[in-house]
Amino acid sequence: MSAWRQRLHEIIFEADTPAGKAFDVALIVAIVLSVAAVMLDSVSDIRQSYGLWLTYIEWTFTLLFTFEYIVRLACVTRPSRYMTSFFGVIDLLAIIPTYASLIFPGGQYLLVIRILRVLRVFRVLKLVQYLGEANALRLAMRQSRRKIFVFMLTILMLDVIMGALMYLIEGEANGFTSIPRSVYWAIVTTTTVGYGDISPITSFGQSIAAMMMITGYSIIAVPTGIVGVELAYAMKKGVSTQCCKSCSQEGHDADATYCKFCSAEL
Amino acid sequence: MSAWRQRLHEIIFEADTPAGKAFDVALIVAIVLSVAAVMLDSVSDIRQSYGLWLTYIEWTFTLLFTFEYIVRLACVTRPSRYMTSFFGVIDLLAIIPTYASLIFPGGQYLLVIRILRVLRVFRVLKLVQYLGEANALRLAMRQSRRKIFVFMLTILMLDVIMGALMYLIEGEANGFTSIPRSVYWAIVTTTTVGYGDISPITSFGQSIAAMMMITGYSIIAVPTGIVGVELAYAMKKGVSTQCCKSCSQEGHDADATYCKFCSAEL
Amino acid sequence: MSAWRQRLHEIIFEADTPAGKAFDVALIVAIVLSVAAVMLDSVSDIRQSYGLWLTYIEWTFTLLFTFEYIVRLACVTRPSRYMTSFFGVIDLLAIIPTYASLIFPGGQYLLVIRILRVLRVFRVLKLVQYLGEANALRLAMRQSRRKIFVFMLTILMLDVIMGALMYLIEGEANGFTSIPRSVYWAIVTTTTVGYGDISPITSFGQSIAAMMMITGYSIIAVPTGIVGVELAYAMKKGVSTQCCKSCSQEGHDADATYCKFCSAEL
Amino acid sequence: MSAWRQRLHEIIFEADTPAGKAFDVALIVAIVLSVAAVMLDSVSDIRQSYGLWLTYIEWTFTLLFTFEYIVRLACVTRPSRYMTSFFGVIDLLAIIPTYASLIFPGGQYLLVIRILRVLRVFRVLKLVQYLGEANALRLAMRQSRRKIFVFMLTILMLDVIMGALMYLIEGEANGFTSIPRSVYWAIVTTTTVGYGDISPITSFGQSIAAMMMITGYSIIAVPTGIVGVELAYAMKKGVSTQCCKSCSQEGHDADATYCKFCSAEL
Repeated sequence: MSAWRQRLHEIIFEADTPAGKAFDVALIVAIVLSVAAVMLDSVSDIRQSYGLWLTYIEWTFTLLFTFEYIVRLACVTRPSRYMTSFFGVIDLLAIIPTYASLIFPGGQYLLVIRILRVLRVFRVLKLVQYLGEANALRLAMRQSRRKIFVFMLTILMLDVIMGALMYLIEGEANGFTSIPRSVYWAIVTTTTVGYGDISPITSFGQSIAAMMMITGYSIIAVPTGIVGVELAYAMKKGVSTQCCKSCSQEGHDADATYCKFCSAEL
Repeated sequence: MSAWRQRLHEIIFEADTPAGKAFDVALIVAIVLSVAAVMLDSVSDIRQSYGLWLTYIEWTFTLLFTFEYIVRLACVTRPSRYMTSFFGVIDLLAIIPTYASLIFPGGQYLLVIRILRVLRVFRVLKLVQYLGEANALRLAMRQSRRKIFVFMLTILMLDVIMGALMYLIEGEANGFTSIPRSVYWAIVTTTTVGYGDISPITSFGQSIAAMMMITGYSIIAVPTGIVGVELAYAMKKGVSTQCCKSCSQEGHDADATYCKFCSAEL
Repeated sequence: MSAWRQRLHEIIFEADTPAGKAFDVALIVAIVLSVAAVMLDSVSDIRQSYGLWLTYIEWTFTLLFTFEYIVRLACVTRPSRYMTSFFGVIDLLAIIPTYASLIFPGGQYLLVIRILRVLRVFRVLKLVQYLGEANALRLAMRQSRRKIFVFMLTILMLDVIMGALMYLIEGEANGFTSIPRSVYWAIVTTTTVGYGDISPITSFGQSIAAMMMITGYSIIAVPTGIVGVELAYAMKKGVSTQCCKSCSQEGHDADATYCKFCSAEL
Repeated sequence: MSAWRQRLHEIIFEADTPAGKAFDVALIVAIVLSVAAVMLDSVSDIRQSYGLWLTYIEWTFTLLFTFEYIVRLACVTRPSRYMTSFFGVIDLLAIIPTYASLIFPGGQYLLVIRILRVLRVFRVLKLVQYLGEANALRLAMRQSRRKIFVFMLTILMLDVIMGALMYLIEGEANGFTSIPRSVYWAIVTTTTVGYGDISPITSFGQSIAAMMMITGYSIIAVPTGIVGVELAYAMKKGVSTQCCKSCSQEGHDADATYCKFCSAEL
């Protein structure tokens, strides 16, 4: 019995054996197909023609994923730990919306959260390298999160103040119908998205907007600089760790076989 | 009497003691609530239904903040210095608009400037780290302000010239009704905001616009590069926290053996 | 006979001799002219006035390029290798659409793919320097392709989820007519393009959109940081052009005294 | 006579003496005022009310600047060299449009080119520092111009091809009326400007557009990286030049008094 569970665990949770790899590839294909079905179901033309078929597909995949979830629970040694893990939560959220749609129509569109399960793809691809890259990204993100938070809070405050100012300058007649809406406009502008659904009409409003744009354009440099510096640090770290045994100097490339300072083998 | 003042000073101006921390948290909650009330008051539907309540809330907060301002003045040793400090000015500006709205209707919307008081939040959060991050940002900003100024002046001049050119090319019929408006369009374009409220119609105008976009897209690199380099420098500097024992100056490189200001060993 | 072929090869495939340079310049002029003709042919006013002439020009250039392609095949030693090379494929694709337009009208507009032949321009310009620059770019691109892939996949997943969310929030009445369309909107927003053909109308939708924008604005830093770091590395590497005399491998650091692959002195 | 010319030269061409500084400040004020007059003259409301006054102001400034130009010619030793210098050409271009407007109405709007004369402002501000900053920017620009050129050419080619593709996919009915217009749209999209005057309607067109956006969003990193790296190099260069006389090691900060490696005075 334990051997069965261990075998299942190997297939379902790992990607080292051919069977495990095949399972993961099949799973990813199933996930992408099911998300595609949900997305197509939302297009009214397609729903009217093939709605019933898409509902069948949706239920089939949901029952499959439910079965898979139960098997996963069955073959891990500590089910509670899997249930509270990142992928455990995603796996559960990926099946709930179909059942929920019986009570709340439209809820099935939340099934697209299944797409997050595709993150397992990194296990199938050349594992170590991709995870290494992802780790460098994650490390840089964690290191810069405080600075990014300070930056975002400052931007948000400026946008609240500029939004209120533009509400007074432009007024409700020009589309700035309330302060929250003006703040929305200010965010659309400083992030350089610029929908144009709301845009200043008066000369004074346009001057203020132009100033905001140039400022926004200049300070986009700040998060870029922060993450860039942290990334440079995280990526450099991942490259050079070796220290020459003979002359004890560091800074060797990852692909070096011999010390570049004293020619000793590394 | 002096003991009372000192106790109050500790609570109101500092965040080290539990009482001081509690006061700051309560203050920040009050600020956010009052700003939310002002913002909601500008939404016409909500103003019609709950306008009176929102006015009551606004006056309550304003009276509270006025009282707080007086207490702050009372418990600092040199009130004039507090009044001219950054937070002193903000604290005053945060209460004036309500009183001003008695004379100038609509002025109360400027109350959103209160949001700047939230900057005190950094005192409550893990103080030193966040201020350190903010300092690195501020240092990088100060170091790059001249280069950014040169950059902005150049952009602005180019936009004035391109704006005048497009005014001649497109003409008033195509939305480029005046040079100031065309300059506004040029700024909207080079900053990649692109509202689309004004956009070139003629083929020649579109060609010029396309050239401006590619140029703007390429030179966005310049402020990014400037701030990035300065940030890298400011953040690297922050790594070497050594302080000379002899002349107690900071800012030494990580590989320094001797103080660069007084030659003492580090 | 072989001498003729070698002479032709020198003129057509290389740019070192005056004749070879002249041929390449003439070729680039012809390419640019033919692409301009195709582009003008698509403007309906011009097509009605000069359509016949443009068709003549198109066929003349196509016959010329066909002749050139045959000559190229004739004067290389291994034609099959040229046919499967990058430029060989482009050269073929650059003539097919005219013949295809006899069967599928409109196909001739695909002739603009000829523009890729202009990449040969780098051979005419100061060869080594430009190729060096292009190599630095290519090396940085190759080094960062995995990280960029991880980044793009993450962005795409978030956009799918946010798109589905906005489809539920805004609904079909506000332009979010299906999930694929909402995902398109999400991509337009997070990349800060912001057409404004679809934009959120409800307050809740606008809040979500504002959050997406600020996030998108902050994470634009990530690919910038990745490519920047790799570029810095590739460009720094480009400074040290040394090649090991013993094992003839490149890529040594500027401060290296010994080859890192075979320990020979540099 | 020569003394007079030298005195005038000192006042007009230099900014070291009080008189020279005063002249430059007055000149900059005059330039900004005259450009403002030209810009206001283009606003139809203002032109109708104050058109005559603005014409007087324009002619006054033009005559003044003409007089200044003649004086400049008179007091330099080699007038031909001044006439062909950057500022000499700008100074001439800054007066021609007014005279030209007698023949070509509307030409006076080109007077905004006067704004380039404001670049003299750097002479008045703390000269050396600002020019140093501008030099770092210029050096970085020059160093990266080849890479930027390669990058721009690649982008432009891709936009031509994508434009032709979208012309075939979307067709004239959806706003993509010709290939040049579609190329304009492609540039608007990849640079993330996104006016929304032309935007894809069909599902397939939107998919292609979404791919272009994500690509454009990722490759914005390339020029940023290039200029950033070059800027980092140019700015670092400007800082460290000293070399310790005692231990002959380099890499000292600009504010260092003693060598950080051996404590010798620099």
